[in-house]
Amino acid sequence: MEPHVGKKRENVTRSIRYIEEAARNGASLVVLPELANTGYVFADREEALALSEELSDGETTQIWGDAARRFGVYIVAGIAERAGKRLFNSAVFIGPTGVIGAYRKLHLWNDENRFFEPGNLGVPVFDTPLGRISIAICYDGWFPEVYRLAATQGADIVCVPTNWVPMPGQPADRGAMATTLTMAAAHSNGLMIACANRIGTERGQSFIGQSLIVGGDGWPLAGPASRDREEILYAALDLERARAGRTLNAFNHVLRDRRSDVYDPMLGTGWTSSPA
Amino acid sequence: MEPHVGKKRENVTRSIRYIEEAARNGASLVVLPELANTGYVFADREEALALSEELSDGETTQIWGDAARRFGVYIVAGIAERAGKRLFNSAVFIGPTGVIGAYRKLHLWNDENRFFEPGNLGVPVFDTPLGRISIAICYDGWFPEVYRLAATQGADIVCVPTNWVPMPGQPADRGAMATTLTMAAAHSNGLMIACANRIGTERGQSFIGQSLIVGGDGWPLAGPASRDREEILYAALDLERARAGRTLNAFNHVLRDRRSDVYDPMLGTGWTSSPA
Repeated sequence: MEPHVGKKRENVTRSIRYIEEAARNGASLVVLPELANTGYVFADREEALALSEELSDGETTQIWGDAARRFGVYIVAGIAERAGKRLFNSAVFIGPTGVIGAYRKLHLWNDENRFFEPGNLGVPVFDTPLGRISIAICYDGWFPEVYRLAATQGADIVCVPTNWVPMPGQPADRGAMATTLTMAAAHSNGLMIACANRIGTERGQSFIGQSLIVGGDGWPLAGPASRDREEILYAALDLERARAGRTLNAFNHVLRDRRSDVYDPMLGTGWTSSPA
Repeated sequence: MEPHVGKKRENVTRSIRYIEEAARNGASLVVLPELANTGYVFADREEALALSEELSDGETTQIWGDAARRFGVYIVAGIAERAGKRLFNSAVFIGPTGVIGAYRKLHLWNDENRFFEPGNLGVPVFDTPLGRISIAICYDGWFPEVYRLAATQGADIVCVPTNWVPMPGQPADRGAMATTLTMAAAHSNGLMIACANRIGTERGQSFIGQSLIVGGDGWPLAGPASRDREEILYAALDLERARAGRTLNAFNHVLRDRRSDVYDPMLGTGWTSSPA
């Protein structure tokens, strides 16, 4: 998608058109970009505040909730969340019967630090009829801890609303580093990952598109999409296959082979939960 | 390189030829593959035991040590280590003035579990005149924890002796997943990573070559090499640039942005050390 900053009504309306199209084509889970309703490049905190909404009863949540019910789909979508006086760069997770939960971006990128509070809901995993679903947003994907925490809590799918921007050092003839990070995280954890990026340029900041859906073996099932066109990517996610694929041979399992005994004492602590 | 299982004398002799060639071309740090002296596919534990050596006074360590002194280089090389009655899939780190230390593979792959003990030396970082150097071996690279532990202890470079094999699901027209994992780890940690893989087929097991040296921004500086030819890759590693590159903008630093406050309580523990 190409949201336009400040044009909330227009952005949400276009998102509903795409959700409907995806649902008609068989989608059961739809992922929209980061800050899909508001746009990304706020001039200042006041602008972000004016565009933000309480998740429980905000207008955008209601409209997306209506769509989820009407089309029978699950939706993960980026939204500027107001919680009292605080703002979060959040994603709301909505199913056919209403809001399931929310995720608040843990790792804020650049000027987001001026507007938003760092996320305080951890890495939640939501148990749904579609599978166990976790959420990360954009720069969160630079931290392998996030995917590991999702996987060790039993997540099958991580939905990633994102607003990837060009990274320094990116060779013009190669795919985005974000693709590499996503594939590595999927492969190392046996996770399926669906990343929805935006396109376009907003107040001088360009975005790189290249949305993709990656299988539990780390190879793309769909995409990377183009850098500059709105489009919908589709993939069939096979939960049993991804779970079975974590067993690599008679000795190895990508999660159970973790050496918590080593990781923990070395740094005082570690990631010790067992895979579900 | 293409080691041949059991032909230790021949393998070590060829490795010395390559070390000398690399040194003459200006190399100061040379990385050889996993189990470079013995070959990889042991018929049974007895064969592995017969080929293994104590690191302190073993023949191979002495020959590599002579080469390091003679050519004025640092060498990281895979070796079957005997320690009392135990065997480890290890890498020895030797400088111009002698043995600096060793690393024992933490995550054993497949039949290695029949022959070797899991590593018990953690993720050591060696402070050398070339920079702070850490070591990982092959399947260790599937665990982002390893690179994170190296980085949070201040490593600049991770040397990876490896014997990568084909992975299930690998599309014929794409580079190895090992490349993706290495690039992601380098980018996420601002680490330079040098992976030396073997080539050839041993007792029915093929190896995929594609050695590479990756910069701290995650993009290859050299390689991936071919899948089937012995060759030496060279790269100039700029420590200052890699360290500075971890600062992404006025707000973000790839290591300092870690949310230990979130990672730790979620799983009881976490990776809490500060970057050096």
